[in-house]
Amino acid sequence: VSAGNTAGSTVADVGERGLIERIRVRVPPAPGWLRIGIGDDAAVVEPPRNHLEVITTDCAVEGVHFDCRFVPPDAIGHRALAVNLSDLAAMGATPRLATLSLVLPPSLEAAAFDALVEGLLALARAHGVALAGGNISRSPGPLVVDVMAIGTARPRKVLTRGGARPGDLVVVSGALGAGRAGLEMCAAAESGGDSGARSRYLRPEPRVRLGVLLGRTRAATACMDLSDGLADGLRQISQASGMGLQVDADALPIDEGARAWFEAHGRDPVREAVAGGDDYELLFTVGAKLQGRLRHVARLVGGLPLTPIGVVTRESGILLRRGGRDEELPPGFAHFDG
Amino acid sequence: VSAGNTAGSTVADVGERGLIERIRVRVPPAPGWLRIGIGDDAAVVEPPRNHLEVITTDCAVEGVHFDCRFVPPDAIGHRALAVNLSDLAAMGATPRLATLSLVLPPSLEAAAFDALVEGLLALARAHGVALAGGNISRSPGPLVVDVMAIGTARPRKVLTRGGARPGDLVVVSGALGAGRAGLEMCAAAESGGDSGARSRYLRPEPRVRLGVLLGRTRAATACMDLSDGLADGLRQISQASGMGLQVDADALPIDEGARAWFEAHGRDPVREAVAGGDDYELLFTVGAKLQGRLRHVARLVGGLPLTPIGVVTRESGILLRRGGRDEELPPGFAHFDG
Repeated sequence: VSAGNTAGSTVADVGERGLIERIRVRVPPAPGWLRIGIGDDAAVVEPPRNHLEVITTDCAVEGVHFDCRFVPPDAIGHRALAVNLSDLAAMGATPRLATLSLVLPPSLEAAAFDALVEGLLALARAHGVALAGGNISRSPGPLVVDVMAIGTARPRKVLTRGGARPGDLVVVSGALGAGRAGLEMCAAAESGGDSGARSRYLRPEPRVRLGVLLGRTRAATACMDLSDGLADGLRQISQASGMGLQVDADALPIDEGARAWFEAHGRDPVREAVAGGDDYELLFTVGAKLQGRLRHVARLVGGLPLTPIGVVTRESGILLRRGGRDEELPPGFAHFDG
Repeated sequence: VSAGNTAGSTVADVGERGLIERIRVRVPPAPGWLRIGIGDDAAVVEPPRNHLEVITTDCAVEGVHFDCRFVPPDAIGHRALAVNLSDLAAMGATPRLATLSLVLPPSLEAAAFDALVEGLLALARAHGVALAGGNISRSPGPLVVDVMAIGTARPRKVLTRGGARPGDLVVVSGALGAGRAGLEMCAAAESGGDSGARSRYLRPEPRVRLGVLLGRTRAATACMDLSDGLADGLRQISQASGMGLQVDADALPIDEGARAWFEAHGRDPVREAVAGGDDYELLFTVGAKLQGRLRHVARLVGGLPLTPIGVVTRESGILLRRGGRDEELPPGFAHFDG
C-alpha cells in the first residue's frame, strides 16, 4: 500500500485498509510495554506496575464541538486528543496510550485525513502517548472523532473532584476566556483579533505536567478541568465535595486578548470568562497548610500562572463576589443541551 | 434527578446530566478493582495482576452498521458491545470493562435511549463487564455508538492472527451466513423467515468462552473473529501468518435458516456465507498435534459446533475447493468501502 500519490483523492478513494496504513506509517515504533499495536483484532498492553490506571473518553462531533469551515484538520486531531489528556491531567494521571475511532464522511479529502491524524499524533508524541489502536467507519453525516485515553497514577495520588475542605484555596491555572473568544474570532473569520486566543481555542495545551505534579506532591485536595467552563467546574467541585465556594470575580485571570474581544463587542469579560467553555485549564483546591507545596509546584511548571480565586466554605452554595457584591453564577457550558 | 416520568420525552428534553444519571442508576455496584466509576473526569482502575491487558474499540453508525427502522434500540446497544467482546474473544481475552461514547440525535426518544443502554448493560452483566465511563454528545446526523473494551489474558496465552503453521487445521465456530441472511430478513420486514437468523443478526452472542479456552489451553495457533466475513478472516490469517490456506467449501457449516433464505432468493448459499459479514464466530487454526486439546475445548463449550473447514499450507494463496474444483475467494465485507 502506498501512502503517497493521492493528491485530490478522498478517503472513500483510499478505502479503510489504505487509511489504516496511512496511520500506521505515521505512528512511531511502539514502546516495549505495547506488545501488540495497530493491526490485529485488539491491542495488547503490559499494565503499569504499582500504578492505577485512569481511563477517559471524549468525542468531538462536527457541527457540535467544531466547525470544519474554520477549524483546520490538524486542529481537529489535536483537540480530540487534548480534551482527553486534559481529563487525565485533572485526575493527576500521566498519559500512556490512546485509541482513535474515526467516523468519516466519504467526501473528506485524503490530505485532510492525513492532517487530522498528524495533528493528533504530534500532540501524542509531545506527551509520550502511544496510539494503540482504533477503528474507521463511514459517516452518512458529520465527521466524528472519538478518543479513549489511559493514564497512570500511583495509588493515593489520584485527584478527584470530591476532596475540597473548608478553608482550602481555590486556584485556577493559566488564563480564562480564550476558549470562547478564540472560537468567536475564528468563526468571525476576521484576520485581525488576537492570535493567542485563536490558537488557544484551536490547539489547547492540556495541563498534563501541572496535573501530574498536583497529584504527585499531593498539593491539591480536589481538581477538575475547565472543558465546560469555570461555572461548571465550581459547581462540580462544590457538589462532589459537599462544600460551598466563595469566588473573587475581580481576581479571575482573564486572557487579555479575550478581554479586549469581549469589551469591543460590548460584553462583560468576567461573565463570559466564567460561563465559557473550551478553556482547558485546571481548577483545583489547595489545603490552607499546603501552600508551600503549591509554591513548589508553581516553580516546577515554570511560566504557567496559578491564580488563587477564592476559598472553600462550610456553607453550601457558590458566591461570586464582585466589587463587594455577590452575583449569581452564570450557567455552565453544555455541548449537548446548548 | 428523577429517572422516571419522562413518557414521550426526547433525549434533548432530558439533557446530558439527566441521561448520565439514567445510565448510572442502571449500572450494578462497581467491583472492588474499579476504584472510581462514572461521575468524575475519568475512571480509576486497579490493573490486573500477572495478566496482560487487551484493548479494542469499535463503532456502530446509524445508516452504515445498523438501520433504526428494523433494529430495535436494545439490539443496537447489545450489538455495540458484542462486536467488541468478539474482538477480545478473538485474542483469547476475558472481558473486564468497557466505556461508552454516545452521539445522539436530539429527537431520539428517552425510552429508546433507556432501551439501548439496557441492551448494552444486559450483555455486560452476562459477561461480568463493568461500565467504567463514557460520554454523551449531540449528533446533527446519525446515532453513533462507540464502545471501547478492555480484557485480560495471561502472557503467552494471547491469540493473534499470525501463528498459523503448515498442516494446522482451519476451524470455524457456530454457523455461517446468519448475519447476512438475518439482516436481509429484518430489512425485508416479512414476519416469516427464520427467527434464529434474525436474532443472530440482531443480538449476536460473542464467543467469549470459546476464545478464552482457545487461549488458555493454547489449542489455537491463530485466531480472529468473523465480523467482516469468512473471506476476510481467511485473508487476514493467511497474510499475518505468511501461509496459504486450503478451504473445503462443502464442509462449511452454513446456518440452515440462512441457506433456505438464500436458496429461496436464487442465490448461492456458499458464496453468501463466505462473503457475508456480521457472523460473530471465531475462525482459528489448530496444530496437527493439538487436536486432543481441541476436543477438550469442544467438550467445555458444550453445544457450540467447532467445524474443521480446511488446512494451512506452505504455498501462498487461498484455495476454496468445491465439488473437486478450486474457486476464487469472494471479496470480504467492508463497512467503509461498501
